[in-house]
Amino acid sequence: MDTRKGLAVLGSTGSIGVNTLDVVASNPERFSVVTLAAYGNVDMIEQQARRFHPQLVVLYDDEKASTLEQRLQSTGIEVDSGLEGLCRAATHTDVDLVMSAVVGAIGLRPTLRAVEAGIDVALANKETLVMAGDLVMRQDVEGWGQVIPVDSEHNAIFQALHGHQRTDLRRILLTGSGGPFREWTKEAMAQASIEQALKHPNWKMGPKITIDSATMMNKGLEVIEAYQLFGARLDQIQVVVHPQSIIHSMVEFHDGSVLAQLGIPDMRVPISYALAYPERLPNILPSLDLFAVQSLNFYPPDLDRFPCLRLAFDAARLGGTMPAVLNAANEIAVQAFLDGQMGFLGIPVVIEWTMTRHDVVPLTDIATAMEADRWAREQAELAVKGLLSSKIAS
Amino acid sequence: MDTRKGLAVLGSTGSIGVNTLDVVASNPERFSVVTLAAYGNVDMIEQQARRFHPQLVVLYDDEKASTLEQRLQSTGIEVDSGLEGLCRAATHTDVDLVMSAVVGAIGLRPTLRAVEAGIDVALANKETLVMAGDLVMRQDVEGWGQVIPVDSEHNAIFQALHGHQRTDLRRILLTGSGGPFREWTKEAMAQASIEQALKHPNWKMGPKITIDSATMMNKGLEVIEAYQLFGARLDQIQVVVHPQSIIHSMVEFHDGSVLAQLGIPDMRVPISYALAYPERLPNILPSLDLFAVQSLNFYPPDLDRFPCLRLAFDAARLGGTMPAVLNAANEIAVQAFLDGQMGFLGIPVVIEWTMTRHDVVPLTDIATAMEADRWAREQAELAVKGLLSSKIAS
Repeated sequence: MDTRKGLAVLGSTGSIGVNTLDVVASNPERFSVVTLAAYGNVDMIEQQARRFHPQLVVLYDDEKASTLEQRLQSTGIEVDSGLEGLCRAATHTDVDLVMSAVVGAIGLRPTLRAVEAGIDVALANKETLVMAGDLVMRQDVEGWGQVIPVDSEHNAIFQALHGHQRTDLRRILLTGSGGPFREWTKEAMAQASIEQALKHPNWKMGPKITIDSATMMNKGLEVIEAYQLFGARLDQIQVVVHPQSIIHSMVEFHDGSVLAQLGIPDMRVPISYALAYPERLPNILPSLDLFAVQSLNFYPPDLDRFPCLRLAFDAARLGGTMPAVLNAANEIAVQAFLDGQMGFLGIPVVIEWTMTRHDVVPLTDIATAMEADRWAREQAELAVKGLLSSKIAS
Repeated sequence: MDTRKGLAVLGSTGSIGVNTLDVVASNPERFSVVTLAAYGNVDMIEQQARRFHPQLVVLYDDEKASTLEQRLQSTGIEVDSGLEGLCRAATHTDVDLVMSAVVGAIGLRPTLRAVEAGIDVALANKETLVMAGDLVMRQDVEGWGQVIPVDSEHNAIFQALHGHQRTDLRRILLTGSGGPFREWTKEAMAQASIEQALKHPNWKMGPKITIDSATMMNKGLEVIEAYQLFGARLDQIQVVVHPQSIIHSMVEFHDGSVLAQLGIPDMRVPISYALAYPERLPNILPSLDLFAVQSLNFYPPDLDRFPCLRLAFDAARLGGTMPAVLNAANEIAVQAFLDGQMGFLGIPVVIEWTMTRHDVVPLTDIATAMEADRWAREQAELAVKGLLSSKIAS
């Protein structure tokens, strides 16, 4: 009998997926890769399949999946495609844990299927909690899978809460670097170039999430995720600007004690924690050197200069489909900024315009969230065009 | 049936004892005071007895105990005295938890008796672990009582480890303010006045422990305590100078994650944690305001300017009776400094002189520790006299 933890790695060709397979490669006695899935990177997933010998490999893109199938013909590895293929990869009978790290809304359904089937999920897909948190976080349901967050902030909160009683929770202190514009005035931000917005002080990430860090929408989405993950009230979630990104987040208990999780900013730490939970894997990363860090600083967030953060709190408060609308409108707005269609301060304008026009619908299924997402993208595109013609924010 | 946790409060008239009874008074549905014990403060313990209605009250001082007995005659509360009385108070049949907060070596035997009897101990008495840690920390023995540290640093480590596996521990990061002489040169310390040494930056404490903070012997004794409490190797214990005293200590796990416990510097937090463990008591203290704190700093300790810290590591490494010798010699040396008999830098000289002359004996019983304590005091007195005549350090 195979006593190893069987993994489904959804999004195996992305940064989280690659790091996940790194951890697996270092711990072959602990983990086996049962399924791999990605969007459409044939070359990379073929290499991964040959190295980790999964039973099933899935590419979302049908055509790419056909190419992959031919290449893997002699290996005996099954190949599938599409959303149904992703769901099969997530719920394969030998899977003990799903690493849910596909990018975007296509991650929703496979993640939901896994927890419904009682399979634990290491969650790195932001959309799952932002768009469908009400559907996925059903810890009240018997036999539901557990969600272990991979994002460094939520993983920190999860670690700090582990072993303690959630009913003792007073506050969640969600830390964030404040992004490249932490000390900029609103006037300066209005003129910010794409290059300036793409310079994150601590983490190296893709352009979309780096812009989200500059607007602090990244932190806003994390507020919504924390709200869903930990069952806290919104007024119990405090964003703390912490430029060094050494404290990954904190929890405060009813007795005044605060527990913080700290570490070097390296995604392999939360990934390996999520994979091995409730155990820990020894790793070869250097220890946190507090003497080199010397100083940790903390500032309140400025909701005036960073209206995206305020909008995220609003969306969480309004609930239902509104967080999905916030998220979709943000994606369109960020892309418009990256395409040079509008200025940096146009981003919150587009999002707020879209949110204002939305009638909240309670979340009963994924289709509702997807429809809100579609609607919001359409509206946000209109808003971008409106900004272009009126030149309000460019 | 009384479902409340029955407490023995040893050292009820001291600062920890008074705060303990404060917590009890705020939570009458959770705790009952079964026994009270103190050294000799008749007036105060009489008041406490009338307020909390214990079954037994003990004063170490025989004569004072007689006075108390007369005063409490009509109450039906039993009064006892001496070390045997303290042991009775610690092991009374209705006691579920002992708050061990008497000052000095007289705390050893009652604490040991309690854990031997399978009673959990909230430990605030430093001598227990420094002088007799090998005897008290026997978690390998079936039915042994658990020791929950009250000291803010060890309580922080205990909280950070709670729910996690001790085998995953990589390092203990024991924080300390660095004391009033943190930035002083050795030359300046040689001339330090008693008043200067008594100015602790963050905590208000008695003169002995404040001087220990100035020499960093306080942190050294805490190293020995942490070594005993958490079963770590000495090379896993790192002292971290952290002037703000907001992070009360940290643990680092094998995966590189660090968990820290933070809070406002108020002894009621660790006291209430130790009393209610594994639960937490809501309290009315204000939340930690990180925005007011703004900055947390970390520096390596300087063993050259603070030789007492090095001596404590040496004593722990040598083991057996040596930590008791270190502790006793330190008490004599600090008193000699407070009495104006020698300068500040005489303190480590006296301790090292005493340690050098000591032949380590393995700890088999409390008597061995007490004999080492007696011997070391005698030797340290000789050292102080030697310093006086040779005027080395004054």
